[in-house]
Amino acid sequence: MGDEEIIERVAALVLARLEPQHEQDLRQDFETLTHAGAEADDGTCFHCNGRGECHRRRPVTVRRILEAGACRVAARYPAGPVADELAPCIDHTLLRPEATHTQVEQLCHEAREFRFASVCLNPVHVAKARALLAGSGVAVCTVVGFPLGATTTEVKVFETSQAIAAGATEIDMVLHVGALKSGDFVTVESDIRRVAAACGATALLKVIIEAALLTDEEKVQACAIAQLAGADFVKTSTGFGPGGATIADVELMRRVVGEDLGVKAAGGIRDRETAERMIRAGADRVGASASVKIMREGGGQGR
Amino acid sequence: MGDEEIIERVAALVLARLEPQHEQDLRQDFETLTHAGAEADDGTCFHCNGRGECHRRRPVTVRRILEAGACRVAARYPAGPVADELAPCIDHTLLRPEATHTQVEQLCHEAREFRFASVCLNPVHVAKARALLAGSGVAVCTVVGFPLGATTTEVKVFETSQAIAAGATEIDMVLHVGALKSGDFVTVESDIRRVAAACGATALLKVIIEAALLTDEEKVQACAIAQLAGADFVKTSTGFGPGGATIADVELMRRVVGEDLGVKAAGGIRDRETAERMIRAGADRVGASASVKIMREGGGQGR
Repeated sequence: MGDEEIIERVAALVLARLEPQHEQDLRQDFETLTHAGAEADDGTCFHCNGRGECHRRRPVTVRRILEAGACRVAARYPAGPVADELAPCIDHTLLRPEATHTQVEQLCHEAREFRFASVCLNPVHVAKARALLAGSGVAVCTVVGFPLGATTTEVKVFETSQAIAAGATEIDMVLHVGALKSGDFVTVESDIRRVAAACGATALLKVIIEAALLTDEEKVQACAIAQLAGADFVKTSTGFGPGGATIADVELMRRVVGEDLGVKAAGGIRDRETAERMIRAGADRVGASASVKIMREGGGQGR
Repeated sequence: MGDEEIIERVAALVLARLEPQHEQDLRQDFETLTHAGAEADDGTCFHCNGRGECHRRRPVTVRRILEAGACRVAARYPAGPVADELAPCIDHTLLRPEATHTQVEQLCHEAREFRFASVCLNPVHVAKARALLAGSGVAVCTVVGFPLGATTTEVKVFETSQAIAAGATEIDMVLHVGALKSGDFVTVESDIRRVAAACGATALLKVIIEAALLTDEEKVQACAIAQLAGADFVKTSTGFGPGGATIADVELMRRVVGEDLGVKAAGGIRDRETAERMIRAGADRVGASASVKIMREGGGQGR
């Protein structure tokens, strides 16, 4: 059975298992998504909705447009600077629970210096990071239901709203792994959909599937459900599970979500070569604690 | 420097670093706690406040009273059955994110069979466990801010209230490790105090210090702050950190909290011998996934 056939079969399975009341809407969303690539440059496609964030939300499509000959792509302010071809793909990450106030300050200083896409921090640090990064173009990303994904939807929604109020513009949530493993796709979908609603147009939503816990079939299910539920990205790993990002997972996830969602590779990416391999495999973003090392390996010196 | 001197010195340090507006109240609480042992059987002591839960909340004191010749200790209904000398000390634990609905059912079935103190589950499973364990005397324990302790106080409080509304009567929260490491004791204390307030008289609060991330001095600080802030138990580990419970940590924690708080050993306890060693070292509760194996090693067959 080829990849395309697996994807089709699982997508059908996902749809079939969803509750009847959701099914029609979801099928329609799915069809919209499937055909959204054709609408990439007219500002009306399903996910971007004319927000001028195609460079962040549809990077693969944007790259294709540029390769086809376009010299510019519109982006709403603040779009974020582009220092090095790799820097805007990196979420500069510090999620260790023992991170001190001083380490958070250092992380933000480095992110400003190297112009990373974001800093990715635990929720307790969002307000401080927001203050330290004001005017820098570096986004503040935080995590929700992290790293187990086993808090209730109500708590994930509350945590998301609180994080956005404190200044986060990117939310990396962990899906409900146990419900996925139980075949309870309705719960998985509604959990993500409600967090996506809390993100609204204010924050990007990345759904962490914790690939190391899943079979290939479950990875496909997870990505299909995340896409149907309104995620902007799918992300491989928390960095706290039994394994991190792999090339094979990034390639599989990219095949499932096509060109309409971002793919973030995270967990165990400690050098430039690995980061670049992840991007070649289809990742738009790389989450790493070793970001400064990764930049220096390419000769980057910050600004 | 002897243990007593370390404890005194750190307690003084903890108090000195706290904000002036808290200091007087906290010092008074600390003095009350220090002398509370003498009031163990009059129903007015600081932590129990006549709720008839001394058998759960002050197990060391209760044991001392029994050893001194008492043949009964009052306990409010439902007190929980006592099947085997070990069973009522065990929180039967399933915190893996990939736990399925079926595994949760099995866990509850086993807890009822062996009459464990509680089942300890992720928040998504609380309502189901509550329903499955109705009338069994087995408590439902869940985790808050778990396992990193790095969600905001507002989220921890909300999560606690939601868990209690869904049927949890024991809350195992992770303290703000980064604030502790930063010497920001005010933040650590107020985080715990607000969760303790949300627990009120409805739920026991266990504070997980994640000992493997801490120096001995920080372990003492963590326990002293948890005690001052109104915790019922201190707990060694999440099971997701770099190390689990050790005999040395249990002994140290017991020395810091004296006889007024419970101590829960958790993380890496996989056989009866280890469980019994933890209890001899001062633990009142043991968190374990291998609880059924532990019981069977002692010849326990459930009921």
